[in-house]
Amino acid sequence: MTDQNHKPLGIICLSGGMDSCVTAAIACCEVIPAFLHVSYGQRTREREKKAFDDLANYYNVPKERRLHVAIDYLKKIGGSALTDPGIAVPSHEKITQSLPGELPVTYVPFRNTHILSIAVSWAEVIKARFIYMGAVAEDSAGYPDCRPEYFEAFNNLISVGSSLENRLIVKTPLINLSKAEIVKRGMELDAPLHLSWSCYKNSDKACGKCDSCLRRKRAFEMAGYTDPISYKNPS
Amino acid sequence: MTDQNHKPLGIICLSGGMDSCVTAAIACCEVIPAFLHVSYGQRTREREKKAFDDLANYYNVPKERRLHVAIDYLKKIGGSALTDPGIAVPSHEKITQSLPGELPVTYVPFRNTHILSIAVSWAEVIKARFIYMGAVAEDSAGYPDCRPEYFEAFNNLISVGSSLENRLIVKTPLINLSKAEIVKRGMELDAPLHLSWSCYKNSDKACGKCDSCLRRKRAFEMAGYTDPISYKNPS
Repeated sequence: MTDQNHKPLGIICLSGGMDSCVTAAIACCEVIPAFLHVSYGQRTREREKKAFDDLANYYNVPKERRLHVAIDYLKKIGGSALTDPGIAVPSHEKITQSLPGELPVTYVPFRNTHILSIAVSWAEVIKARFIYMGAVAEDSAGYPDCRPEYFEAFNNLISVGSSLENRLIVKTPLINLSKAEIVKRGMELDAPLHLSWSCYKNSDKACGKCDSCLRRKRAFEMAGYTDPISYKNPS
Repeated sequence: MTDQNHKPLGIICLSGGMDSCVTAAIACCEVIPAFLHVSYGQRTREREKKAFDDLANYYNVPKERRLHVAIDYLKKIGGSALTDPGIAVPSHEKITQSLPGELPVTYVPFRNTHILSIAVSWAEVIKARFIYMGAVAEDSAGYPDCRPEYFEAFNNLISVGSSLENRLIVKTPLINLSKAEIVKRGMELDAPLHLSWSCYKNSDKACGKCDSCLRRKRAFEMAGYTDPISYKNPS
């Protein structure tokens, strides 16, 4: 067993999805973990919260190092299929048909900055040294706040705008990995992927058809592993 | 009357205090105003919300261009006298006695980033071109997120991390003014300072003793104007 006392404290932003699950597996080797979950009025928030709780239990994170924050104002502000019931979550076909330079409707305006800001405020109080986020640059064609330059800019913001200055750093260990490499890394680390939740649409059984499900399924296929969760539409 | 149609849309972050009131007066000359109020579990939130409503009514801001967001998680996270009932709001004497390099207990960890992030998300949806915040560099000895370099870093974050890129800019028209100059600017623009609220402690009548009241009173004195609000402890 690793001596926990020699490790710094690290906050892991955990949506409950595959990427954040693998990020947690990596982070738990490096830091004493504190788990942060942010729900923002997204359709599948209850199911994602369950995945967060399951993962926190799996890693034995005590209650005082778990924080769940609901920022339902993102639903009030709208502008995304993930938070606005008036905008349909598209099938993969529709996404690929969208115009070049146009953002997918699943983009939630400036979402990652909200999540990271909560992590920084918490880090200032509990004196954490690191924040982990499972962002993947491969997604960056759609989401501007998943690109390496975004995280560089955010680390710069921390250094000038928080009391921790350069003593707090956001780490994105998956940023340059492909989805298949993320699955492989998760398998190597025995990440509890059976507890993670990726579907944008459903809360009972993953739909297998939304963009998030399709990307996950393809990642497992390309990595040569079987996805431990089951789907409504397996083909 | 100015032709509103030729002006861009601008979001004004309005706490309801003196600085944000003068910022609103400046912004209303430049943009079609949208008013944003963020309460974060601070002691005087109800009174500040009233000041926000009064100021929005004064400037005839219609309901669809008003947004009030409660981010009570900053209270949950704690670490500030403004949100944690267990930490006393100090008198001015105690603040000046604090150690050099130490943050005042009224610092709310990373607060401005939360407020600005909400403004950016809203701007992405309503297509605003500007965000105004009444930050003052004079306060920056205490608050890292009031410094010009902080806003420069935040504008850089918008340019890489939001869908609006360089089409959205945060403006801080008071950043280099002294508190006395802010009062003068407000008077020149007929800013409704009688509707603003600055006290950190009370919600009925301003205490006149907390750091925020003392700074406001001194500003009016130095500017040579009478503060239109009354105090419990006028001397």
